[in-house]
Amino acid sequence: MPTNRQQLLDNRPDGEAVASNFKLVSVETPPLKENQVLVRHHYMSLDPYMRGRMNDAKSYAQPQPVGQVMQGGTAGEVVESLHPKYAVGDRVVGFGGWQEYSVVDASQPGALKKVDTTHVPLSHYLGAVGMPGVTAWYGLVKIIDPKAGETVVVTAASGAVGSAVGVLAKARGCRVVGIAGGADKCRYVKEELGFDDCIDYRQHPDVKSMSAALKEACPGGIDGYFENVGGYIFDAVLLRANAFARVALCGMIAGYDGQPVPLANPALFLINRMKLEGFIVSEHMEVWPEALAELGQLVGSGKFRPRESVAQGIESAPEAFLGLLKGRNFGKQLVKLV
Amino acid sequence: MPTNRQQLLDNRPDGEAVASNFKLVSVETPPLKENQVLVRHHYMSLDPYMRGRMNDAKSYAQPQPVGQVMQGGTAGEVVESLHPKYAVGDRVVGFGGWQEYSVVDASQPGALKKVDTTHVPLSHYLGAVGMPGVTAWYGLVKIIDPKAGETVVVTAASGAVGSAVGVLAKARGCRVVGIAGGADKCRYVKEELGFDDCIDYRQHPDVKSMSAALKEACPGGIDGYFENVGGYIFDAVLLRANAFARVALCGMIAGYDGQPVPLANPALFLINRMKLEGFIVSEHMEVWPEALAELGQLVGSGKFRPRESVAQGIESAPEAFLGLLKGRNFGKQLVKLV
Repeated sequence: MPTNRQQLLDNRPDGEAVASNFKLVSVETPPLKENQVLVRHHYMSLDPYMRGRMNDAKSYAQPQPVGQVMQGGTAGEVVESLHPKYAVGDRVVGFGGWQEYSVVDASQPGALKKVDTTHVPLSHYLGAVGMPGVTAWYGLVKIIDPKAGETVVVTAASGAVGSAVGVLAKARGCRVVGIAGGADKCRYVKEELGFDDCIDYRQHPDVKSMSAALKEACPGGIDGYFENVGGYIFDAVLLRANAFARVALCGMIAGYDGQPVPLANPALFLINRMKLEGFIVSEHMEVWPEALAELGQLVGSGKFRPRESVAQGIESAPEAFLGLLKGRNFGKQLVKLV
Repeated sequence: MPTNRQQLLDNRPDGEAVASNFKLVSVETPPLKENQVLVRHHYMSLDPYMRGRMNDAKSYAQPQPVGQVMQGGTAGEVVESLHPKYAVGDRVVGFGGWQEYSVVDASQPGALKKVDTTHVPLSHYLGAVGMPGVTAWYGLVKIIDPKAGETVVVTAASGAVGSAVGVLAKARGCRVVGIAGGADKCRYVKEELGFDDCIDYRQHPDVKSMSAALKEACPGGIDGYFENVGGYIFDAVLLRANAFARVALCGMIAGYDGQPVPLANPALFLINRMKLEGFIVSEHMEVWPEALAELGQLVGSGKFRPRESVAQGIESAPEAFLGLLKGRNFGKQLVKLV
């Protein structure tokens, strides 16, 4: 059996997450039992939600246990199988965690899914045609529910979720304005993803400046806001929101490292008769088929070209993850393991 | 024609509203034109929303114009009529403002409505069987949408809106917990309105203490929150909210006088996958008949005995209104004019 290198959560962050929260270990993969499959991971997914789980706090998910393999999505190939429906060579996605191999009981519903890599590269099943893409789809379609001609704003616009929000909103005839960090990301958001505009938050580091930039980019006001970040950008968006605007609350990365980040003026939700809804996509499995069909079509046809940041090797995972939390990635953050 | 005393908005508040923002004047009522009706106001309604309109700020309604009669709901009797459908002696509700008489063009849809005072006293058409009651109904039924057995919390629980929220939620099989200021109000909320519990916020003046009181009063957590107040109570409720809790945002009186009152931890909306919706009842006229039917039945049958604070005479309106903003009223605040 092959040797399997793993990244464990060694200890919980005290404030900002650091590399020493993780620990790299090597173990032997165990022999397979009936219905089990050995998957060699080609890619593992790094996602902002993982930071929340590193805290031992009340949340929608159990905290990531200390001393165990960091949990997360993976894409790879079957290298051994004792399950009749999986053959060596099958491309599969699952939730294998931060390690090079995983042993999966393939009889568990949803534990493993075969994917077709003819038109969609394997890695995209962890991004645009995977959980981040469906997250974008759910928040946009089911919460914001935009009408053609409305204006939708999305933060972390060059990221895995944000880029999909924009492409899906453009497909629905909206004006789409992204917010991203740096000129390169903004150029990509506008020129390659086709957003109508993109605001570089580094040029607008406070509410007043961001609000002015949003006024210029959204001359008709804001009807839908897809929130990945929190903090002063949320405050600024509320100042430009139209009556009956909708907010899909997907992430608040600004507060992951420590003290909660307040919302300056919640009364604007009353003044503008707005709706806000927080969600996590794993609680809405019923939309996945419809969402993945649309996203797969957009990616397979070349209309949506998601960008990826790919770190190499299991040993690079902690630094790549910490970089993601600081916005150093550009597009979907992956670790390539083969 | 009778002399009509009026309260005008003389100047806008600079911070806290004060009595000198208003000015009492006397005018002659003009002769009626075709389709006009002269209404003598028996009661005028004082409501927290009026404070928001005294500011010259972007909001859902036009600001109250300076130098003009304060706008507001009124209940009275027809004393002269040039409209075929209204006769002298008819009891009517309308939006006559802070004055003793109003001249109404009764051909305008919604300008005037005849009411039946056989089972429901006239004044209640400004409270439980009027705008405040429908406000309660909309936020509870259409936004919180509670299931039997769920726990609903409402602030300003002894007030015109809050009391109706509680009675309507009890009728739907919920556990209902009010928050009110002082032992007398809490006793009324529990003993006369039939709430399961009531928390005196004066005994719990900070988030930590209020959160502990809510934990005790809501052993199963909070599923629905009807928000009339804002500020630290909202923060405390969020700490006790269950997954998929709903917040109907009706008022945020805490911020009317000056700086916006922040929300400490908006990420709780994500962690608990909550919904928040701000609303104003005048934008949902379609629910009024259904809501008024239920409220009229509850009041007419004696199951719901709304409490009123009644100030006497047009000259008392400013002080009564300022008292309302400070929670000095007990139940629906009215001014009696006859």
